[in-house]
Amino acid sequence: MTGRRGREWWLRRHVTGRPAPADVELVEVDVEAPPPGSALVANEFMSVEPYMRGRMDGRANYAAPYELDRPMTGSAVGRVVSSDSLPVGALVRHDLGWREYATVPAKDCELLPATDLPASAFLGVLGIPGLTAWAGLNKIARLREGETVFVSSAAGGVGSVAVQLAKAAGCTVLASAGSAEKVLMVREVLGADAVFDHRGPVTVRLKEALAEAGSPGIDVYFDNVGGEQLEAALRFLNDRARVVLCGMISIYNNTGKTPGPANLIRLVWRRARMEGFLVSDHLGDRPEFEAELTGLIRRGAVKPVETVVRGGIEAAFDALLGMLGGRVTGKTVVSLVSDNHHNYDKENERWRGARHGR
Amino acid sequence: MTGRRGREWWLRRHVTGRPAPADVELVEVDVEAPPPGSALVANEFMSVEPYMRGRMDGRANYAAPYELDRPMTGSAVGRVVSSDSLPVGALVRHDLGWREYATVPAKDCELLPATDLPASAFLGVLGIPGLTAWAGLNKIARLREGETVFVSSAAGGVGSVAVQLAKAAGCTVLASAGSAEKVLMVREVLGADAVFDHRGPVTVRLKEALAEAGSPGIDVYFDNVGGEQLEAALRFLNDRARVVLCGMISIYNNTGKTPGPANLIRLVWRRARMEGFLVSDHLGDRPEFEAELTGLIRRGAVKPVETVVRGGIEAAFDALLGMLGGRVTGKTVVSLVSDNHHNYDKENERWRGARHGR
Repeated sequence: MTGRRGREWWLRRHVTGRPAPADVELVEVDVEAPPPGSALVANEFMSVEPYMRGRMDGRANYAAPYELDRPMTGSAVGRVVSSDSLPVGALVRHDLGWREYATVPAKDCELLPATDLPASAFLGVLGIPGLTAWAGLNKIARLREGETVFVSSAAGGVGSVAVQLAKAAGCTVLASAGSAEKVLMVREVLGADAVFDHRGPVTVRLKEALAEAGSPGIDVYFDNVGGEQLEAALRFLNDRARVVLCGMISIYNNTGKTPGPANLIRLVWRRARMEGFLVSDHLGDRPEFEAELTGLIRRGAVKPVETVVRGGIEAAFDALLGMLGGRVTGKTVVSLVSDNHHNYDKENERWRGARHGR
Repeated sequence: MTGRRGREWWLRRHVTGRPAPADVELVEVDVEAPPPGSALVANEFMSVEPYMRGRMDGRANYAAPYELDRPMTGSAVGRVVSSDSLPVGALVRHDLGWREYATVPAKDCELLPATDLPASAFLGVLGIPGLTAWAGLNKIARLREGETVFVSSAAGGVGSVAVQLAKAAGCTVLASAGSAEKVLMVREVLGADAVFDHRGPVTVRLKEALAEAGSPGIDVYFDNVGGEQLEAALRFLNDRARVVLCGMISIYNNTGKTPGPANLIRLVWRRARMEGFLVSDHLGDRPEFEAELTGLIRRGAVKPVETVVRGGIEAAFDALLGMLGGRVTGKTVVSLVSDNHHNYDKENERWRGARHGR
């Protein structure tokens, strides 16, 4: 017993359609002292991500479903409070988010380097979303300088990094996002060449974007959404194009069957490749990825963009709903400690020094 | 002027939906003497193939549309009648089918080797359909011994070769075809491990076929049809599966939009690759392909299966309709000369010596 109490989100029933408050419950529990070989971690930030929706509905896909009447899981960063194996005060990343206090085997704690970026960056641009963008472009699409890249959901956690990596690689970048504000952000902050609001007629908008960027067609489509944007992208593929399937947020909350693109035959005509991937297959590339991203961030070629939801653990479920509903910009993280603050200096478009700790 | 008259099929109007007799016309023309550097060829066999449907509707896809009021084109084999560049009597393959006499630049005539196979084999198992199956499995899917392969339209010109090549490579082969007779042929002649009639409930049948073959899932799907068979195949993909898109005969005659598979997300879960290809990109591999296929045919591992439509040039359009309608088995060729005969000895399952010529 530590005398501490901590709160955590439990899944109470499997989700159908849009997650509802009655599907989950914020439960308060006693915090036990960590057993030998593990660490008690006070979480500072936790991640909410699209794939979590899939784990809530009880059907196995690539990730095991969340168990009922147990706390949910996900990426988090926090500081070691008590441990026989790790230094107290160390900043660590682990997979036991959705709770204020996590008891984590030491081998599952990743010690994070000292950096002038806020700890939340290790859940976003330097975390799984950043690695997803990097692996999709480099390992799956095998992106080459001068190509034309289209990124959907470009204001999101993965898309915002994909846009910037493609620009940094010397590509022409088209992008789509779901509001006028996001379109502006993707164009002005991320530097995409042509950006459109995907709530318009997608095929028309994409054609206009190609014209605006002066590109005859798409070499790489980084697909985060599926649905009609995928069909529109197929319409404009260049020969030997690659479609990287990263996720299909457009269908996650659907209960019925959503028809796929009616024009897959274009993969034949264009000798094009469509390939799905899971970031979990690319964890071994993390050192290369982190070195490259750190360099790009330092010289300003990649800017971390995130939405930090304040309000502590109580706000986490609403943060997930907001992210799934497209109501956030950049990577969404939940701050679990009261004195975190948004460290991004919007005026100067750069990060202030991180000041964390309880 | 040669004094000869020859007949040829002209496209008279662009096709919508199913090709109709009024879309084409059999025209009789004077046969001119071949200009210098070319050959007058008396065609013996011409090919009808699914891609021809696409060239009839006036919209460019990967192949140029057929021109109106001109003879259609396609693979053919014939004998040189007159030429200043090629030996009279030589057997050649060229791309000016759909006519009795073709005037072909010598550089576009491929001299065919002497063989004990009938000349029609150079339009089928040793021609473009065979190369399509070979390139799809070897160059696109990169098939490995021991994998489970599913081939749709397995009784067709491409599928029948794909089934046999996959078996010869030491794979477990599931196959589908569109009639009880074809199912029997694919199982007993081609040697597939489990075969089903795709007119049944496809997902159920495919699941049964996997159980019958003792395979947990599909490593390679060689897709000739698209539509619901593609969706069913996606349902049962193994990790790192490859879906080779060769064509989508199920949609060629449709006038409206046909929804694509509703479960493309499985490409993400299974980290699977779907890739389209055009055989025209693989013509450089013909020597390797021909050597391999000739060897496999000689040792009985690949049996040519073809439907020879007799009745001369008049029968060619009906042969195309029959092939598109799925009413033929194996590669469909039209015999343009009266004394050709079906050289396949069904009883002994082998080819008789070829006896061609006018």
